[in-house]
Amino acid sequence: MTLRADVLEKIVKCFHRHGAETIDTPVFELKDVLTGKYGEDSKLIYDLADQGGEILSLRYDLTVPFARYVAMNKIASVKRYQIAKVYRRDNPAMTRGRYREFVQCDFDIAGAYDPMLPDVECVKVVSEILESLKLGQYSIKVNHRRLLDGLFESCGVPEDKFRSICSAVDKLDKCTWEAVREEMVGEKGLSGDAADLIGEYVKLSGGSELVDKLQADPRLQGSKAAAEGLEAMKLFLHYCSIYELTGTVKLDLSLARGLDYYTGIIYEAVLQEEAGEESVGSVAGGGRYDELVGMFDPKGRKVPCVGVSIGVERIFSLLEARNKDESIRSSPTDVFVASAQKDLLEERMKICTLLWKAGMKAEQSYRANPKLLAQLQYCEQNQIPLAVVVGESELKNGQVKVRIVKNREERKFSRDELISILSNLLAMDEPKF
Amino acid sequence: MTLRADVLEKIVKCFHRHGAETIDTPVFELKDVLTGKYGEDSKLIYDLADQGGEILSLRYDLTVPFARYVAMNKIASVKRYQIAKVYRRDNPAMTRGRYREFVQCDFDIAGAYDPMLPDVECVKVVSEILESLKLGQYSIKVNHRRLLDGLFESCGVPEDKFRSICSAVDKLDKCTWEAVREEMVGEKGLSGDAADLIGEYVKLSGGSELVDKLQADPRLQGSKAAAEGLEAMKLFLHYCSIYELTGTVKLDLSLARGLDYYTGIIYEAVLQEEAGEESVGSVAGGGRYDELVGMFDPKGRKVPCVGVSIGVERIFSLLEARNKDESIRSSPTDVFVASAQKDLLEERMKICTLLWKAGMKAEQSYRANPKLLAQLQYCEQNQIPLAVVVGESELKNGQVKVRIVKNREERKFSRDELISILSNLLAMDEPKF
Repeated sequence: MTLRADVLEKIVKCFHRHGAETIDTPVFELKDVLTGKYGEDSKLIYDLADQGGEILSLRYDLTVPFARYVAMNKIASVKRYQIAKVYRRDNPAMTRGRYREFVQCDFDIAGAYDPMLPDVECVKVVSEILESLKLGQYSIKVNHRRLLDGLFESCGVPEDKFRSICSAVDKLDKCTWEAVREEMVGEKGLSGDAADLIGEYVKLSGGSELVDKLQADPRLQGSKAAAEGLEAMKLFLHYCSIYELTGTVKLDLSLARGLDYYTGIIYEAVLQEEAGEESVGSVAGGGRYDELVGMFDPKGRKVPCVGVSIGVERIFSLLEARNKDESIRSSPTDVFVASAQKDLLEERMKICTLLWKAGMKAEQSYRANPKLLAQLQYCEQNQIPLAVVVGESELKNGQVKVRIVKNREERKFSRDELISILSNLLAMDEPKF
Repeated sequence: MTLRADVLEKIVKCFHRHGAETIDTPVFELKDVLTGKYGEDSKLIYDLADQGGEILSLRYDLTVPFARYVAMNKIASVKRYQIAKVYRRDNPAMTRGRYREFVQCDFDIAGAYDPMLPDVECVKVVSEILESLKLGQYSIKVNHRRLLDGLFESCGVPEDKFRSICSAVDKLDKCTWEAVREEMVGEKGLSGDAADLIGEYVKLSGGSELVDKLQADPRLQGSKAAAEGLEAMKLFLHYCSIYELTGTVKLDLSLARGLDYYTGIIYEAVLQEEAGEESVGSVAGGGRYDELVGMFDPKGRKVPCVGVSIGVERIFSLLEARNKDESIRSSPTDVFVASAQKDLLEERMKICTLLWKAGMKAEQSYRANPKLLAQLQYCEQNQIPLAVVVGESELKNGQVKVRIVKNREERKFSRDELISILSNLLAMDEPKF
């Protein structure tokens, strides 16, 4: 939880830096709200028992509830983040951060705006978050649904096969091209020639020079969708250069993303694994979904949206694995109040009262007469940096001992100075008298 | 959410000050875990549908999952807080902060310690939290299950009626004594004499002088339970005086608290309503439950616990009602980057990049060419304190305008100074050049 809190704090800081507010939605939605939004994955939705009320399900992600919220509250524009649990009846894989209950962490911009401006900010947000978490090398792949459609069209895929061929392409990050080709041709009935053509394109990845090259490609020039997609990518990559994202962001024609609701740009951030590490795959992903809010509006009023989901569970797993030899301190306590002899409980309680009043994080033993050694061991085990030791002889002189736990140094101070002495020591990286 | 985040931040600060770490438990528990823990209220538990896996229910509170967690992980001692949603199929009452999904906020100390030391810290925590939230006058009522048992025994209540008479007493904060007496005599078959005797005691409320008086009471002297309860309260009130809680804490013999699992001290914090305010009732409550962990341990191994739950939903409702005329700023943005003319989008984007890099909370319009007036109005509506205005003439001189939104003052600065100028302005309570 300490590691999680630390990661989420950095993420929220970034969301705030970009002006996002937060909302909350219930953990359950009407089952109808979720129906028909997740394709095949709908079988993974948790339902509540019918106990004589509404028919409810646990939320499967935060995007559909957000769209429902925007529609129900007739919101024209909002920039929001939400960090909350979602539920999937899936097969857990603990080491890769896949659970049945897990945290999603979403940032979305809803509203009718000029092309690619909210979109590029989402990618900027991903980049700032991955930098701040110091996860190592990463890249952000982008693609565009219109460009993919245009590509399929130009390669001779019949329009009614766009979606299924797209979901085959989506498997390229896990399967070889041969396996994907076999799915296209064997399973989905695409011609071998069309598949081979697609195979040439999905190898391509690059910056604005790739867009130029594709815009000059005679085959793609015949497709209005491809032209539109390329124009959009050109603008997007230009904005990326202003936001200092060139080098991080790459157009990647193999990126497809499974979900049906995307309508424009799509993106995915991928970490470069360190030697010997299990691949965590993508650690953030999202895209534009301009139709989803309209599905929840009685009049079909649309609100264009673009957003990103940070794969925090994968990030937690990764950081846990990387830090497994380091002990993370879970106690927040800064000062432990100890007693050197018996019958000093009340003195300890008075010192605690003083420290709490000064806003310090302090605790003491819940034993009336604990052994000094046991108290000091507790400090060392819990990495509490400072101890105040109350003793009979010091008490007579209005003094207390302050102990730096790490180097076991001790000094006496008058009680009046105690708060300022402790504050000064806590302000140092390595407390020292 | 802004108000909620503010309240929870103050509460977490207090929990940290007292050395508590946090844990997380799943939103659902095995149905068996919850069965038999909540008495009559069990009918309010939400069940999940049987989808061919475990039979699950949504958690009803955080105490039972915590006890299950302590037992399952064979924990001998822990001080933890948990802030999470719980679920009850109850009748909602929005103005009083009663919902079907609501936040609970618990602080518990588990472990075998010396009498009343963890208990008094829980009450200290409640007092610090209520002070920090500035909710106005409050008092903390305390009582002890052993004292209540002894009292019932001394008044002639048969032992098998202790629990049901106790739950009648629990209604004294909502009903008159006459109604409670009627429940005891008419419904629960207690003798009128016994009821009248109880009636005399439950009027009593006071500090350590009341404990002295009760210890001298011949009727109570015959009961071992009463003597134990009074001894415990005496120690507790003494500790309260060291923690500077005298005046805040009162022994109140009418306090009973419904839940079956309490075994020792019980307490409840009550706010004094301001004129014309709806009563919110108790805003925090808890007590000692030494048997609950043992119910989840295969060998019945017990871990004594004491804890408190802060009624944050009631506190949210109360603060919302009190602040209803004040607008709470929901946007976190500190600096809005505006443009005075057309074709300055890229300049705005560059300034944003600069500000984000410096850790500032900055945003801009998602329109390529927004009107200046619209941008400035956005700042005023969202109470964004500062604006940076990019203009053609300033641009030529390497300058930008900084505007203080509240008083509409503007000054020009060189771009190199921008970050330090903005930081200085933001550090002021009322930004001023």
